[in-house]
Amino acid sequence: MKEFSSEIIVRGFHIDVFGHTNNARYLEFLEIARWDALKPLIENGFFAKRNLGFVVVNINISYQNPSFINDVLIVKTQIKKINNKSTIVHQQVFNKKTNNPICYADVTFVLMNLETRKAIVIDNEIRSVFENL
Amino acid sequence: MKEFSSEIIVRGFHIDVFGHTNNARYLEFLEIARWDALKPLIENGFFAKRNLGFVVVNINISYQNPSFINDVLIVKTQIKKINNKSTIVHQQVFNKKTNNPICYADVTFVLMNLETRKAIVIDNEIRSVFENL
Amino acid sequence: MKEFSSEIIVRGFHIDVFGHTNNARYLEFLEIARWDALKPLIENGFFAKRNLGFVVVNINISYQNPSFINDVLIVKTQIKKINNKSTIVHQQVFNKKTNNPICYADVTFVLMNLETRKAIVIDNEIRSVFENL
Amino acid sequence: MKEFSSEIIVRGFHIDVFGHTNNARYLEFLEIARWDALKPLIENGFFAKRNLGFVVVNINISYQNPSFINDVLIVKTQIKKINNKSTIVHQQVFNKKTNNPICYADVTFVLMNLETRKAIVIDNEIRSVFENL
Repeated sequence: MKEFSSEIIVRGFHIDVFGHTNNARYLEFLEIARWDALKPLIENGFFAKRNLGFVVVNINISYQNPSFINDVLIVKTQIKKINNKSTIVHQQVFNKKTNNPICYADVTFVLMNLETRKAIVIDNEIRSVFENL
Repeated sequence: MKEFSSEIIVRGFHIDVFGHTNNARYLEFLEIARWDALKPLIENGFFAKRNLGFVVVNINISYQNPSFINDVLIVKTQIKKINNKSTIVHQQVFNKKTNNPICYADVTFVLMNLETRKAIVIDNEIRSVFENL
Repeated sequence: MKEFSSEIIVRGFHIDVFGHTNNARYLEFLEIARWDALKPLIENGFFAKRNLGFVVVNINISYQNPSFINDVLIVKTQIKKINNKSTIVHQQVFNKKTNNPICYADVTFVLMNLETRKAIVIDNEIRSVFENL
Repeated sequence: MKEFSSEIIVRGFHIDVFGHTNNARYLEFLEIARWDALKPLIENGFFAKRNLGFVVVNINISYQNPSFINDVLIVKTQIKKINNKSTIVHQQVFNKKTNNPICYADVTFVLMNLETRKAIVIDNEIRSVFENL
């Protein structure tokens, strides 16, 4: 399972009353990076053909250091564990210039059948697609 | 045409790098206030039955004074002008405590037929509903 | 330790491409509710006098059910545990009408001395203030 | 006065209940593009040395066509007019692939002396810097 890397610039509207990037904005950054990582599968219609959607069921995020306006952040995204019905993605955010760790998160999602609205079992085909990402 | 009044509290995540409410966040505040004003029409299904959706085509917003965390803002919303195909809503934002003007905007929207994706002519029935809001 | 209750209405801009409230927006809702709970201490200058700021170090949020436009959400906020240097707040979000659980989170924060930029030990005075909130 | 070009990808959290990019998010896109255009002046400390900050006083934005998830947008930014105390920036947003116009805006800002909190007169030196951007 490859590690994907996304680059994000901190903007004035990401900053909050404390003068640093607001904690909710990091979830937007993580979402950008996950889409980047899954882009090939989304673009070739892998999930659409199977009528599957991603549903995030848990995010466990630890904030290590603040980031500030014009900081360039690197988000590293990697699949950490594939369970029976859920998958855990590990994401780490660094400051590109200083290499300082900013935050890291485990994001757990399920694949939902968009008709039945139920989480499906992750079969070998999907598992293999994730493993070869 | 009645004037509607909405109350909004400025939160830490509304503040940006300049220490005051970010200009984009005011558009969220204005959207909250417009939904509050149109609530009776939305809830009784007036637009849904006609398969009509609101599409904002222009926002002209002037920023007068900054607002800060924990400020309580009053947004006043009133229909200003009903044209052949478009309607202009005038919205003003004040600081509740000091009465200082914060910003004001003219928001122009059309009613779109959700099937044809075209703006409809605002007929007398709709005009009268807007006038009696 | 009392349980605080905040009411939040889901707006059109909280909704994302999946038609339900975006996961990052819930962190904004949780932040609103925490400020509401701490309002008495903020307004009487308790933290400002001690030159202390809140720094969130971890958020562990589980998403249970989606919420949709115009849903009224109740956020319940309660201090769960006070450690030597950190405090854990437990927050639960419900749909007011259906009582359906939407999400819950443990939010861990430290109190930072704004001069030294270090987390302080939570002494008995602060502990007692939190316990009597 | 050169025209600057910024590229922005529409993400799932930019989409709102109508299935297209929310009107407030475009102001974030415009802000990103203005920072990109002014980057050389910000980085060489031109404004900081003069203790000047940018204050947006008016945004007049017209929405032409919707944009959707994964659309790549081009934002073109150009100074349109320099008045005695205010400057008007013209910004246009296009879909990179289809070349469809998405929206355009005139953004009027003043330069505020951060000590006196008053808008300054734009002298010949600043005018020339803007003209040679």
